[in-house]
Amino acid sequence: MANIDNNKLLSQLEFLAIIDKMKNVNRQTLILDKSRQENDAEHSWHIAVMAMVLEEYAIGKPDVNKAVRLALVHDLVEVYAGDTFAYDEKGNVGKEEREREAARKLFAVLPESQGKEFMDLWEEFERAETPEGLYAVAVDRIQPFLANSLTDWHTWRTGKVKREQVERRLALVKKATPEIWEYLVKMLDKAEEGGMFKHREE
Amino acid sequence: MANIDNNKLLSQLEFLAIIDKMKNVNRQTLILDKSRQENDAEHSWHIAVMAMVLEEYAIGKPDVNKAVRLALVHDLVEVYAGDTFAYDEKGNVGKEEREREAARKLFAVLPESQGKEFMDLWEEFERAETPEGLYAVAVDRIQPFLANSLTDWHTWRTGKVKREQVERRLALVKKATPEIWEYLVKMLDKAEEGGMFKHREE
Repeated sequence: MANIDNNKLLSQLEFLAIIDKMKNVNRQTLILDKSRQENDAEHSWHIAVMAMVLEEYAIGKPDVNKAVRLALVHDLVEVYAGDTFAYDEKGNVGKEEREREAARKLFAVLPESQGKEFMDLWEEFERAETPEGLYAVAVDRIQPFLANSLTDWHTWRTGKVKREQVERRLALVKKATPEIWEYLVKMLDKAEEGGMFKHREE
Repeated sequence: MANIDNNKLLSQLEFLAIIDKMKNVNRQTLILDKSRQENDAEHSWHIAVMAMVLEEYAIGKPDVNKAVRLALVHDLVEVYAGDTFAYDEKGNVGKEEREREAARKLFAVLPESQGKEFMDLWEEFERAETPEGLYAVAVDRIQPFLANSLTDWHTWRTGKVKREQVERRLALVKKATPEIWEYLVKMLDKAEEGGMFKHREE
C-alpha cells in the first residue's frame, strides 16, 4: 500500500486484502458444474443471497439484514484457521479454540470498535441462539445440502457420511426453518432409497 | 429436485441453483495470490464486506444494509449476460440491453413480488443515484482497483488501459467516497511515476 496519513483507512484496506484468502480456502462442496470445489468466498456470498431469498420460512422473524451480515462474516476466521469438513470428527477437535484465536488475530487488524463489531457478529453466528444467528446457521447448512443433492451427493459419498450424521446437522434447520427442513428430509429419504447410505454397511 | 407441493419454495431453490453459475463467470481481476482470475461470486462477496467496512467514508449516510444487498445482487445478471471488461469499449456496446434482458429472465424464476424486489435492487445499482446505489457502485470500483494495485497492476497492463479511462471510472468514487478517492489518486500517481501508463505511447 502507498504511504498515506490515514492509518485508519489503511488498516481497513489491509483487512480487506487479507480476507482475499477466502478465495483460496476450499470446502468439500462442489460447485454445481462439478468442475471443482467451492471456496469460502463463494459459499459466503451464496448463503447471504439465500438468507435474502428464504426469509419467509424463518421462525422468530429474524432481522434479515443482520442474518446477511452474519453470513458474510461467519467464515472469515478460516483465512487463518482453514476449513474443517463438517463430518470430520477428528478434525473438529479443537476447532472452536483454533477459530477463536484466528478471529482475535484477524479482527485486531481493524480499528478497535469495528473489530469488536466483527467479533460480535462471528460469535453470534457461532452461538446460533438469536433468531438471526439461528437463521444464518440454517442457511449455512441448507446451501451445502442443496449443492450436494445437485452434484450426485458427492460430499457424502466421498466422506462416507451416515444418515444419522446428516440428521444431526439438520437439527438446527428444523428449528430455524421447519418447512425447508421437511423438504430436505424428503430428499434425504429419496437418497436413502437410492442406496446413498449403503457405505455404512461396508 | 424432488417432487414437493411447495412450488414457491421450489422456484426459490431453483433460482438459488441457477445463480451458482456466478462461480464460473470470470472477471479480469486476479485474486491476490495471482494464481487465477476472480469470479463474480467472490467479487460480490468481497464488495459486500467492503461496504460494511468502509461505511464511514460514504457521503449521504447510505443505509449500509441496502448497499450490501445491492452489492450481493448487482452482478447476478451475468449468469446469462457474462462479464464485460470495464475498459472494453466495443464489448460495452449493447451491454445495458443485454443485461436488462438477462435480469428479466433470471428474476422471473422467483415468485413475482420477490422477483420485482430483486429487479428493483438491480436497477437501483445500475442507476447509481440513491446514496445506497452510489455507495455500492463506488465499492464495486474500489475493490478491483485495490486488487489491481496488489497484483502489479495486472488488469491495466493486460488491457493497455489509459490513466484517463481509470479516472473516468473513478468519478463515481470521488462523488460517493471522496476520502478514499483521494487515496486512490495517490496510488495512481505512484503507478504513473513507475511507468504504468507507458503503453499509451507505444
